[in-house]
Amino acid sequence: MDKKQVALDAIFKPQAVAVVGASDNPWKLGSHVMRSLTEGNYSGRIYPVNPGREEIFGIKTYPSLVMVPEAIDLAIIVLPAEQVPKIINECNEKGVRGIVLITAGFKEIEDRRGESLQKEITELANRFGIKIIGPNTFGITNLHFPLNASFTPEFSYVPKGGISFVSQSGGMSHLMAFLAMSSQVGFSKIIGLGNRCNVDFAEMVEYLEEDPETRVIAMYLEGIDDPRRLLEVAKRGTGRKPIVAYKVGVSQASDQASQFHTGSLAGKHKIYEAAFRQSGILTVRSSEELLDTAKALALSILPEGKRVAVLSGQAGPGMAACDVCEMEGLSIPPFSPKTRRIVETLLPPLAIRTNPVDMGPAWYDSAAIKGTVEAVLEDEQIDAILFCIMFASANRAAVRILADFFLGMDRKKPIICCISAPEGIWDQEIKRIEEAGIPNYPTPERAAKTLANLVRYKKLEGK
Amino acid sequence: MDKKQVALDAIFKPQAVAVVGASDNPWKLGSHVMRSLTEGNYSGRIYPVNPGREEIFGIKTYPSLVMVPEAIDLAIIVLPAEQVPKIINECNEKGVRGIVLITAGFKEIEDRRGESLQKEITELANRFGIKIIGPNTFGITNLHFPLNASFTPEFSYVPKGGISFVSQSGGMSHLMAFLAMSSQVGFSKIIGLGNRCNVDFAEMVEYLEEDPETRVIAMYLEGIDDPRRLLEVAKRGTGRKPIVAYKVGVSQASDQASQFHTGSLAGKHKIYEAAFRQSGILTVRSSEELLDTAKALALSILPEGKRVAVLSGQAGPGMAACDVCEMEGLSIPPFSPKTRRIVETLLPPLAIRTNPVDMGPAWYDSAAIKGTVEAVLEDEQIDAILFCIMFASANRAAVRILADFFLGMDRKKPIICCISAPEGIWDQEIKRIEEAGIPNYPTPERAAKTLANLVRYKKLEGK
Repeated sequence: MDKKQVALDAIFKPQAVAVVGASDNPWKLGSHVMRSLTEGNYSGRIYPVNPGREEIFGIKTYPSLVMVPEAIDLAIIVLPAEQVPKIINECNEKGVRGIVLITAGFKEIEDRRGESLQKEITELANRFGIKIIGPNTFGITNLHFPLNASFTPEFSYVPKGGISFVSQSGGMSHLMAFLAMSSQVGFSKIIGLGNRCNVDFAEMVEYLEEDPETRVIAMYLEGIDDPRRLLEVAKRGTGRKPIVAYKVGVSQASDQASQFHTGSLAGKHKIYEAAFRQSGILTVRSSEELLDTAKALALSILPEGKRVAVLSGQAGPGMAACDVCEMEGLSIPPFSPKTRRIVETLLPPLAIRTNPVDMGPAWYDSAAIKGTVEAVLEDEQIDAILFCIMFASANRAAVRILADFFLGMDRKKPIICCISAPEGIWDQEIKRIEEAGIPNYPTPERAAKTLANLVRYKKLEGK
Repeated sequence: MDKKQVALDAIFKPQAVAVVGASDNPWKLGSHVMRSLTEGNYSGRIYPVNPGREEIFGIKTYPSLVMVPEAIDLAIIVLPAEQVPKIINECNEKGVRGIVLITAGFKEIEDRRGESLQKEITELANRFGIKIIGPNTFGITNLHFPLNASFTPEFSYVPKGGISFVSQSGGMSHLMAFLAMSSQVGFSKIIGLGNRCNVDFAEMVEYLEEDPETRVIAMYLEGIDDPRRLLEVAKRGTGRKPIVAYKVGVSQASDQASQFHTGSLAGKHKIYEAAFRQSGILTVRSSEELLDTAKALALSILPEGKRVAVLSGQAGPGMAACDVCEMEGLSIPPFSPKTRRIVETLLPPLAIRTNPVDMGPAWYDSAAIKGTVEAVLEDEQIDAILFCIMFASANRAAVRILADFFLGMDRKKPIICCISAPEGIWDQEIKRIEEAGIPNYPTPERAAKTLANLVRYKKLEGK
């Protein structure tokens, strides 16, 4: 393993963690970090560092980092900015390889001292071979290890899964984590890069591409200093792991805000989008789309082409899905004669038995639905299925049977769903369907848009 | 009251309801309708009609409608299509003024008999002065009365509020109702027009404009036979109650599906959009946007113009909001010198104190946030506030105090929020903020898009 890998492993998978500036005063960030570590079920050793305390959260506390009697992998620092250079020197003495630097007041402030201080700590860290996440970050969370090295204890409750989210904004990381919690989307890592001393998007992408618990890399960017490195790393990795990026700064107002926020101009948006595309990075336009798309890339196989069969239990949602499909450049072609014959046998005349299919009176007939899905998956004219069904009393049992069928199925084409019911009715079925690699969305339009993004990604991957 | 009003009141506020084709066999729609009425806490009298049963759901059952010993306002019919003309004659005999005709097999089927049967029952109903919702519908739900006259008992649990949803699609009504349930958006009425015998969108809009429990009319359309009538009714009512419409059929595939589904071509989409605009109807492009926009129109006051102040607790979500604002034609102008002075006093130098405001280190300082909101509301350069804040341990208390402040505030400008936290943390605060007329959204982009729609609606209203 190279040094960089070792340092980043020290951050994401440490055996021992020190919290420099630990506290049990609930008004201080140092107490939130302590709560994150303890509530997050971190199984390694925790060493609070605070010269004024004997014990914090019931854990023996040391007056300084160098007094800790054991080797430390990761130091989480929450002390004021001016003390940070000294602490980094102590980290080196102690053999610490990774730092999560939560402290603000570096490059992001107007005062030039902030910038020079950031330069100073970057040079120190580089000289010592230490990797720093931050400064000016909430921290990181590795849900699989588990390790919550952030000032937000609630990140420990984000569902576990395959998406690693790398963000330039703490606010956006919180938004995404809460969206993931409310919609049960699984994350692997949440990473707040902050001001990026010596760990930028490029390093993180390289690291996550080797990480067995990361299936998809989702990024939120404002503006970065060295886009070329990220693009090179992404291009080299094309086809290995999907990368999906949401970059703000389209507007003048947000471009300016970006400069204040993390000291980087958001830069020309169109140029970024084109460069991302050429490097195999899929771009999206909202936080919701970022989560929807990352989820599909984490769960689903990819379509070979853009020809979609829309199968809907009720016509309205199917039509809404069709509109989005066509607007996004997908096609909804006629079925092959063979498929058409099968579908006409399975579905009654009151159904619409051409593509888009409205199952009509068969919407609660799970055998007919199953048969239709099977026939359409076999059809060489079709690359993917968009499947919509809304709950009503008459079809309660249908989705139960459908879930079993989806689970047992050997498929080479993706199915994207909008299965909708009041809370508590189909929750278990939807969970099982997603575990079978079939992502579900709350509206037909979001399902269709996500399928279009899978098609776009497949094209990028082929480049 | 005119006859039409009487007939529609008989449907939405009946004193006595007959279910013609009632059942307690859980595989039959007649049983779901019985469950809807009973679980929905309907307080009027229920008369199941079924010649083969003495009692259904513990309620005395009659062999035919004419045998019911009391006057009936509303008949819900779930018998096969060919029996419907006879039942409508009985309805007339019995003095029934309103019918919810759930039965399918009319104009929507390929067989020409369906069309002639629909013509026959329409002529009967018109002659008798009876209004029919349907055929081929799930029914209607009036959450305020309350009355659930549909085959979906779960509609009884949709939160009560000011949005009346009128839909050509049962599937879309179910989708919208479930979205409303999961996001706690309040509905007044859910209306499935089905094949539209003699109650079309125009009649419903006229009726709902007089309905004190309807604040906003939300519509889902595929294609309608007589758009001119709807447009006239809408234009006449401009400025009274907002109407927001989601019309599918942009794509060729869905246009064709529409013809099959309810016997109407979706028609030229662009022409519809322009005509809607001229009649003061706000158009949207997805089910999610329909719900988001209807909610804001139901809860919020309207902005006088398009100049937005973006106030954000964290920079990232604020920038995402700015991008959407500018893409949607809103402006984010500089504050007046007075506002700027106040904001500079309240917020520390590490914050961004120009528009868009990043409260930065003051994100947990409720006094600073309050003062900033107050100053910006006074600023004559600003028409509306977009307010974003993400939860973190440090600001848990801030939104509690903010909720009190919002509740006690006398405002002439709208505030649209994206206040985001894990479930259970700020739920009560968000509920109180919404009750104060400040709608909240799960992402900054959806909040910004909704504000843009309020600005668009204000312009339409002024025409």
